[in-house]
Amino acid sequence: MAGSSFGNIFRITTWGESHGKGLGVVVDGCPAGLPLCEEDIQKFLNRRKPGQSKYTTPRKEDDAVEILSGVFEGKTTGTPISLAVYNRNQQSKDYSEIASYYRPGHADYTFDAKYGFRDYRGGGRSSGRETIGRVAAGAVAVKILNRLGITFTTYTKSIGPVTASKKNFDAAQITKNPLYMPDAEAAENAAAYLEACMAELNSSGGTVECIIQGMPAGIGDPVFEKLNANLAKAVMSIGAVKGFEIGDGCDVAKATGRTNNDAFCINTDGAVAKKTNHAGGILGGMSDGSDILLRASIKPTPSITATQQTVNKSGEEIDISIKGRHDPIIVPRAVVVVESMAAITIADALFANMSAKMEHLEKFYK
Amino acid sequence: MAGSSFGNIFRITTWGESHGKGLGVVVDGCPAGLPLCEEDIQKFLNRRKPGQSKYTTPRKEDDAVEILSGVFEGKTTGTPISLAVYNRNQQSKDYSEIASYYRPGHADYTFDAKYGFRDYRGGGRSSGRETIGRVAAGAVAVKILNRLGITFTTYTKSIGPVTASKKNFDAAQITKNPLYMPDAEAAENAAAYLEACMAELNSSGGTVECIIQGMPAGIGDPVFEKLNANLAKAVMSIGAVKGFEIGDGCDVAKATGRTNNDAFCINTDGAVAKKTNHAGGILGGMSDGSDILLRASIKPTPSITATQQTVNKSGEEIDISIKGRHDPIIVPRAVVVVESMAAITIADALFANMSAKMEHLEKFYK
Amino acid sequence: MAGSSFGNIFRITTWGESHGKGLGVVVDGCPAGLPLCEEDIQKFLNRRKPGQSKYTTPRKEDDAVEILSGVFEGKTTGTPISLAVYNRNQQSKDYSEIASYYRPGHADYTFDAKYGFRDYRGGGRSSGRETIGRVAAGAVAVKILNRLGITFTTYTKSIGPVTASKKNFDAAQITKNPLYMPDAEAAENAAAYLEACMAELNSSGGTVECIIQGMPAGIGDPVFEKLNANLAKAVMSIGAVKGFEIGDGCDVAKATGRTNNDAFCINTDGAVAKKTNHAGGILGGMSDGSDILLRASIKPTPSITATQQTVNKSGEEIDISIKGRHDPIIVPRAVVVVESMAAITIADALFANMSAKMEHLEKFYK
Amino acid sequence: MAGSSFGNIFRITTWGESHGKGLGVVVDGCPAGLPLCEEDIQKFLNRRKPGQSKYTTPRKEDDAVEILSGVFEGKTTGTPISLAVYNRNQQSKDYSEIASYYRPGHADYTFDAKYGFRDYRGGGRSSGRETIGRVAAGAVAVKILNRLGITFTTYTKSIGPVTASKKNFDAAQITKNPLYMPDAEAAENAAAYLEACMAELNSSGGTVECIIQGMPAGIGDPVFEKLNANLAKAVMSIGAVKGFEIGDGCDVAKATGRTNNDAFCINTDGAVAKKTNHAGGILGGMSDGSDILLRASIKPTPSITATQQTVNKSGEEIDISIKGRHDPIIVPRAVVVVESMAAITIADALFANMSAKMEHLEKFYK
Repeated sequence: MAGSSFGNIFRITTWGESHGKGLGVVVDGCPAGLPLCEEDIQKFLNRRKPGQSKYTTPRKEDDAVEILSGVFEGKTTGTPISLAVYNRNQQSKDYSEIASYYRPGHADYTFDAKYGFRDYRGGGRSSGRETIGRVAAGAVAVKILNRLGITFTTYTKSIGPVTASKKNFDAAQITKNPLYMPDAEAAENAAAYLEACMAELNSSGGTVECIIQGMPAGIGDPVFEKLNANLAKAVMSIGAVKGFEIGDGCDVAKATGRTNNDAFCINTDGAVAKKTNHAGGILGGMSDGSDILLRASIKPTPSITATQQTVNKSGEEIDISIKGRHDPIIVPRAVVVVESMAAITIADALFANMSAKMEHLEKFYK
Repeated sequence: MAGSSFGNIFRITTWGESHGKGLGVVVDGCPAGLPLCEEDIQKFLNRRKPGQSKYTTPRKEDDAVEILSGVFEGKTTGTPISLAVYNRNQQSKDYSEIASYYRPGHADYTFDAKYGFRDYRGGGRSSGRETIGRVAAGAVAVKILNRLGITFTTYTKSIGPVTASKKNFDAAQITKNPLYMPDAEAAENAAAYLEACMAELNSSGGTVECIIQGMPAGIGDPVFEKLNANLAKAVMSIGAVKGFEIGDGCDVAKATGRTNNDAFCINTDGAVAKKTNHAGGILGGMSDGSDILLRASIKPTPSITATQQTVNKSGEEIDISIKGRHDPIIVPRAVVVVESMAAITIADALFANMSAKMEHLEKFYK
Repeated sequence: MAGSSFGNIFRITTWGESHGKGLGVVVDGCPAGLPLCEEDIQKFLNRRKPGQSKYTTPRKEDDAVEILSGVFEGKTTGTPISLAVYNRNQQSKDYSEIASYYRPGHADYTFDAKYGFRDYRGGGRSSGRETIGRVAAGAVAVKILNRLGITFTTYTKSIGPVTASKKNFDAAQITKNPLYMPDAEAAENAAAYLEACMAELNSSGGTVECIIQGMPAGIGDPVFEKLNANLAKAVMSIGAVKGFEIGDGCDVAKATGRTNNDAFCINTDGAVAKKTNHAGGILGGMSDGSDILLRASIKPTPSITATQQTVNKSGEEIDISIKGRHDPIIVPRAVVVVESMAAITIADALFANMSAKMEHLEKFYK
Repeated sequence: MAGSSFGNIFRITTWGESHGKGLGVVVDGCPAGLPLCEEDIQKFLNRRKPGQSKYTTPRKEDDAVEILSGVFEGKTTGTPISLAVYNRNQQSKDYSEIASYYRPGHADYTFDAKYGFRDYRGGGRSSGRETIGRVAAGAVAVKILNRLGITFTTYTKSIGPVTASKKNFDAAQITKNPLYMPDAEAAENAAAYLEACMAELNSSGGTVECIIQGMPAGIGDPVFEKLNANLAKAVMSIGAVKGFEIGDGCDVAKATGRTNNDAFCINTDGAVAKKTNHAGGILGGMSDGSDILLRASIKPTPSITATQQTVNKSGEEIDISIKGRHDPIIVPRAVVVVESMAAITIADALFANMSAKMEHLEKFYK
């Protein structure tokens, strides 16, 4: 099935494999008149680039983006924006062995089950490099949203047992440590934890949190196209995400109505606001004007050097140890991917909302 | 935006408000030749019916379903199946007061923000009665899937602080206690906890878990249409769900690769299997042949009798106490809703998968 | 496949068979705040009602519509509008014989080929009664568009060899003759032609033309979602339509660039206009501000009393003569169906267009 | 709006402008295991290449395609196939003048009306070069369909007043004359007609016809997703197409039921067949097993050297004469575009049809 598109009015379509000729995305439905250049996209891609610290794979990926269409004289034209990153530093020989067996925690087996065979080089389409298209498109979405007053703060919330504290939250810290944590002390502790994992040929999971500020109220839909439902799909579609939460998330299961309900109040501008934000900025599927807060739980990198049991394509049980250049944790690199998917979802919902009222239509067309 | 449809090849479209003339669903894309009668649907609707215990609203809702189209001589014809439940026992006067203010934790404010006004009777479109359409469609999806050997076991996993233990898991218990818990002891403890909540004019959250057995491997897609992503959207689109998990879910954030990876093995039938199932039956977005396990965290009923602060439409801060007939917990009634949304998602993915390989097409058409 | 929905942001989903319990439509994505009552819908349905002249089937179809959801206190709420027409006057015994053979020109054989069997009563889902849902939804779309200054003039352009002349065009005539022709003389000649057809147990084809006035320029999209492409799909999806044309239509094949190009000019309001309208109001897939003109060629009613050759389900060649109450021509009743499908398409395109420019978004959200 | 995708299960997304860096398409939902190489695509692109006769623009367009993803070891993998053609021979200076005014018959004005400005170089996104993506994707679709026994015969049916006769139909002729006509004599007459047009600085319209053989019965859907409706959208979305017909097309308007109905019979293989094919192979929206026959009416190239009246962006009425290298007729180059769009539509419908019956699903999954 055609499963490489996301979004409806603002829609992205990604393509590419880890070790093919390249990867890219077609961003369709971008409004005309947005100033856009390669540097806008590159900044985002650089946030997911490996090789920036000892906690990411030492692979070099230049990931230089080219805009192939949809921009003229520095502005988007309203037609599809084709963005491509050509592969340059892929070492196919590193991966040839994995053609014959199924790596635990990877999609090798399920690809074979579905399609009969797979491009095994570097994980093919199920490689983390697949996210290049998402992030390139996310850069466009964030640029649109910024111009509408909507901003994103996304960071590593936790790594293994180490969680960034709410008390020490410092957004400026996020880009100052290689783990993208908003808490310098937690970042140090997490680094120590990762060192220990690596020493044991092991890897770690963690969480990414995203705060979206400046949202108008009423964005999203009441039933299947709830804003939280689409954010859930967007974020769960990122490889390795196993849990998704809005606001208090899974903790609501232990809460009571008295503690979980957010009282409405009138803020200093005379507008309706909420005294607390357990809801994470969404009520009944529509934004309520508070910050949107979402969280993704990401599993440990499945590629570990420690010996593992698995089976090969001949149906034999074997022991393997995965070589190659792998991240001991993918969470820091996933930060920009989560932000990108959230932004693409929000942009699409904002566009769809414009025809919600007859008075909007009448003002627009008369 | 048209936000009341879900699914692609197997697609449902729901309609209706709590206190309007009725609610219903159009099930489109159902294969021809499925035996189907009203009793098949009614059984499912009865699982979400209130008034069955003291832990659900004492409202009587008969919710008798009618099949209006798409079935001829006892079998589906391949054309849309229109299912309707006409409202009979709605007491609009109970709700008239809420027209003027915004109930905390409800969609009153966001509806007004989006649409300018709302059908305030009984929550209108954001009422829990909206799920009638989902469940009626879910009955059709489950019937299809059962014939393909795929079965669902869905239950209340936890209520407030009380969790059904894995050790005492007993599927037969689920329908024996009014809370749909698979653990008799936990059900008793949960009942006691709910009594305490009700005494304090309070409500409780909880979790629903769903196990899907008999899934072939390779169902779902590798990128945006990952099976887990669509399940996440499906389940997060149910009102009050704030967290969604697959397999070990949020716990993976604290896990390591060594503990989280599921080793592949050859089972007694000679087929590829997994020794553990931390992944919850999905790898790289596609089913791996193990049981699919998903979990939804559901917030406490926002309608509580305790006094709450809010604002009215004139912009004044006021105190309210919500009267009417409300569930102290919605989790037990949500069990069948989660199952329904999961089944609709799985059916759509199975249909989409049929053209995954050229050899499938060649066998089918030649 | 789910093939009973049409549209994207403004989307309709129809259901129902000729002789089932009823037929209907769910209109999703209708903006909130549109005044709407059953009479608005009924007026449209009455335009397709049979039994109004000797040129339509003498069957009585009351086709009284009920609004089941989506309207509150006389206005649309933004949630799905469910419209139903319950069947009352169906005589199933008239049709029982056709269960065993395939009527020429009908969908009996293709239904069996696809689904294995069919609801044969009155044509089931392939009956002309299927258009009830389209027309009920069309009434909503036209009401929206009228409020934006967009109007429709739709009529029978030709019946068999008789064509309404451009010279005698009189819009007021359309509702004054039972054939909906905008030319009294042509209507008389067409009536005489139909009498002759009926005398020979025969039926006639014809054309429907639709003029859409008041369109803003720039509606539609440049590539696959061209306004003309979506209008083509909309109109060709009406049973019995075999040809679709925009502007000069098929005649362009014989034209030259000199005669077919429409010169641009500045009109008396100082706006860009065209001196002629061979293009039919659409250039490059987007409306150009001139009237949109489209035309559908409709085949003769396939149900004729004259003897025909066909085969039965046992694979025998047989002669048949179709009894029952059939229209000698369906063109006049198709007029409102063509208008409805055009209006649904235009509404969807107008909604989608609102995010075409960044400056639109910035004005809307800031 | 995202308007550059077409299809549902088999979906293509095109991008690119005439004079940008290139053009391309992402083909998503292609089944795994189809042998595919660049030569397969190139053959199709060469059929739309200009400069092959004096009746097409003397521009050289190499249009060499590259497969960037989705193919591994010579076979499709089931993941998106990205196909790109980089622009090499574009002469932007030829077109710079058209930035300031609106060419009659072109999309210049409607682009400005929608988006506020346009990439005016060579027509930008509304250039005929936009069809490169369609044709590259069409090559994939045709290759799939050929393996299922479905074949396409597509040709120029008429040019101006000259029509290829049915009597002299000779499929072998199609590739033997530069006009792709299946009738040598007509091709000669058409050539003479074109010479005369060119001498008058004029251009000509014409028709393309496509015959699809080997279709199984039952493909397509009964209501909005009728096979003819989707073919209509597919073909009308090609720039310059103003009329679309199935089977007898517009002629049905003058026909009677006696002459237009196709009698069913039993063919020599004992299968249900039709004695005639006025229906063009589709009944009730579904294929009936006969050849599908469709026809597109294409307007004359709007770019003519003769003087024309128009307006410029300053609102002044001016006279222009369009220079540059233009086709006096685009019909021969549109032949492969029509075939491509038809094939993409048919492939999508075949995939969607696989879940039409429960017995299909049961056989597939058990």
